[in-house]
Amino acid sequence: MSHDTVKVGLVGFGTIGGGVAQILLGKKEEIRRKTGKTIELVKICDKDLHSDRGVELPAGILTDDLSEITSSPIDIVIELIGGLEPARSFVLEFLRAGKDVVTANKALLANHGPELFDEARRLGRTIAFEASVCGGIPILSSIATSLQANTIKSINAICNGTSNFILSQMEGKGADYDDAVKEAQMRGYAEANPSMDVDGTDAVQKLTIMAQLAFGAKTDWKSIPRTGIDIVKAVDIRFARKLGKRIRLLATAARSGDGVELKVSPTLVSETSPLARVCDAFNAVEIVGDFVGPVFYQGLGAGRRPTASAVCSDVIDTALGRSRITFDALSLWSDKKESVRIVDPADTFEQAYLRFLVQDHPGVLAKTTGILGNHGISISSLLQEPEKNNGANLIILTHKAPAGKLAAAVQEIDESSFVLEKTVKMNVQEEEHDQQ
Amino acid sequence: MSHDTVKVGLVGFGTIGGGVAQILLGKKEEIRRKTGKTIELVKICDKDLHSDRGVELPAGILTDDLSEITSSPIDIVIELIGGLEPARSFVLEFLRAGKDVVTANKALLANHGPELFDEARRLGRTIAFEASVCGGIPILSSIATSLQANTIKSINAICNGTSNFILSQMEGKGADYDDAVKEAQMRGYAEANPSMDVDGTDAVQKLTIMAQLAFGAKTDWKSIPRTGIDIVKAVDIRFARKLGKRIRLLATAARSGDGVELKVSPTLVSETSPLARVCDAFNAVEIVGDFVGPVFYQGLGAGRRPTASAVCSDVIDTALGRSRITFDALSLWSDKKESVRIVDPADTFEQAYLRFLVQDHPGVLAKTTGILGNHGISISSLLQEPEKNNGANLIILTHKAPAGKLAAAVQEIDESSFVLEKTVKMNVQEEEHDQQ
Repeated sequence: MSHDTVKVGLVGFGTIGGGVAQILLGKKEEIRRKTGKTIELVKICDKDLHSDRGVELPAGILTDDLSEITSSPIDIVIELIGGLEPARSFVLEFLRAGKDVVTANKALLANHGPELFDEARRLGRTIAFEASVCGGIPILSSIATSLQANTIKSINAICNGTSNFILSQMEGKGADYDDAVKEAQMRGYAEANPSMDVDGTDAVQKLTIMAQLAFGAKTDWKSIPRTGIDIVKAVDIRFARKLGKRIRLLATAARSGDGVELKVSPTLVSETSPLARVCDAFNAVEIVGDFVGPVFYQGLGAGRRPTASAVCSDVIDTALGRSRITFDALSLWSDKKESVRIVDPADTFEQAYLRFLVQDHPGVLAKTTGILGNHGISISSLLQEPEKNNGANLIILTHKAPAGKLAAAVQEIDESSFVLEKTVKMNVQEEEHDQQ
Repeated sequence: MSHDTVKVGLVGFGTIGGGVAQILLGKKEEIRRKTGKTIELVKICDKDLHSDRGVELPAGILTDDLSEITSSPIDIVIELIGGLEPARSFVLEFLRAGKDVVTANKALLANHGPELFDEARRLGRTIAFEASVCGGIPILSSIATSLQANTIKSINAICNGTSNFILSQMEGKGADYDDAVKEAQMRGYAEANPSMDVDGTDAVQKLTIMAQLAFGAKTDWKSIPRTGIDIVKAVDIRFARKLGKRIRLLATAARSGDGVELKVSPTLVSETSPLARVCDAFNAVEIVGDFVGPVFYQGLGAGRRPTASAVCSDVIDTALGRSRITFDALSLWSDKKESVRIVDPADTFEQAYLRFLVQDHPGVLAKTTGILGNHGISISSLLQEPEKNNGANLIILTHKAPAGKLAAAVQEIDESSFVLEKTVKMNVQEEEHDQQ
């Protein structure tokens, strides 16, 4: 933008909106000194005109009338209302009113990325979205620009702070899953209904965005294999530890031949891996590039202040014109851009952690391992311990095997009469990047 | 740059130059697909026309005549000859010939940043230099752009891979300093004369660059307090471990009042800190911003491929015009930009690790602690063990104290007759960011 003062509107004045207003109002002079641009927050739109967001606003800035944003000479609109509608319609409206958009809305991009980006391109506008993945960690700009000379080989991300906090509680305090969820809710790390976090939906939507940036993967997030942490029990944490592992919810994208494998699953990572040391609500991402090797990032992935940091960086990039260059160069979600092949999940190879709850009878172990053997699955290690009600937990780490064969074997076991509960399956990460 | 094909020249065809040529020649089509620009490496200039750099060059591309770079229609010149002269004269020559410059030369920027950046501004050219600090880790672009909405509070960097490798060897294998240096030389992590690495010069020059970006600190690197790892002995590693600490060479910049404190020193960090887990030749940086909180980066800080990754990212940024925007916005090393106050080292507060080699006589401990007490230095913990030749190692962790008083106390102790060797002093990092 060629003018010295850039006008900004903010739509959605909740937790993160409050942080954004704090930065744009409180650091106006500092940002001008740093960048040469004056960035002026001129309007904030929200249905709620009365709640205290802990930030003092100039008179007349807050409105509940969206047209005060769309019909005024505002250059950049920040969308922070979240969810799909009316966020989608609003963003289209902003673009059509000639505004560039900054958003933190991963669900919106994962569901409507192609439509929104096509419309922005058609209208000569830009969309910036660093805050949509891993809050304050500048992971999208790293993939899109800093590591751009690399062919990305893999991304492993701890990108859901709620899940990581819950796993940390279970790990550190031996807490049960339900108690850990309650603690997370009490501490503000989990919502009253945390299902989108604990079932992996949030992580898989973020993975969709990272995979589009890193690999050009154009995919429906619902088609990506997804397991949440809601299957993890205290016994898994304990067994993982016996195996020298920690359990982390990993969103993984990995190049495989001419395609890309995508998945979200609780994953056993080596206790010496940097990912194993990411605790509480922290996020972390490990990217491996063909030239740069492994690069590891860790920071706060959510919350008012870290997310506001990312949103405001996007606002500055848009005001300075950097977003325009990146937006034009990347052609994200464009039909013109060739899309990488997504490897059929059944064709991928994986090392699996399997927990069977079986009848504690002689012969059951032989039957279980026999079924695995019939499907060509070989076993790396095995642990067994009694459970209540005459059951036994049987934990098996397999060697690397085709995911399709693993699924078939697990299905056959689940249909056997000696099984008391649906089998729990997690991934096991290869140990190639240890000793960092 | 508005044209679709951008011509690039490379000056200095050593280890890193080989990696850069591999990327620019081998990934030309991939980079065009990703960014829409064709980046063409048209000339490489080096005195040595014959050594094999492990990369196949098109005929006629390699020359020993610099005028083939300066007088041809090349848009971007990559400077990889290193050192101060003739690098400085060459870069000035490139700028004056209308070329934008990409460099990995931290010594050049730390010594001649103001002159080179002023000249680039005068001529309307740009200089990009991501590769000058921490190789493949995109730390400079993070400070300059991704975290731009933050007031940076502190930077702690492990930015010399040679030093970190040597400390890792001493830590992991109980090796003596001299043996660890030999191992580093054998493995290619240290040069035949490693003095610039082990005496902290390399780290302090990188700190100068980071501090200019993060704080606008304009300073002569020679004035920054600097201690290298050449003072570390096996006994220090052992004592640090007893205290729950690891020793890392940290380059530190921290806001303090209206100023910034800068220093490079072997530093005791808590074994639970992410910095403590950075081993071998890895680099890592922890940045704390007022909004983003702590962000931690880890990756390969040197070597052919990671450094080439950063150089080529800068080349692409320059070709696309992103470097121009960043260069103009930041006004680095400009007289017009207000410079932050550098806090006088004597006025800073620090917790110190002190190792005294003293005569193993009754009363010596009382004298030593007495001198510290007279200077107002209080003691947090104390360890003592006999050394050879009737000496004793006396290790003292102080509480936080004014650096000037610490220095005066150490000087008085060093002048005492019971002291057998110059006192060794390292810093101790506060434990505020643990539990990440």
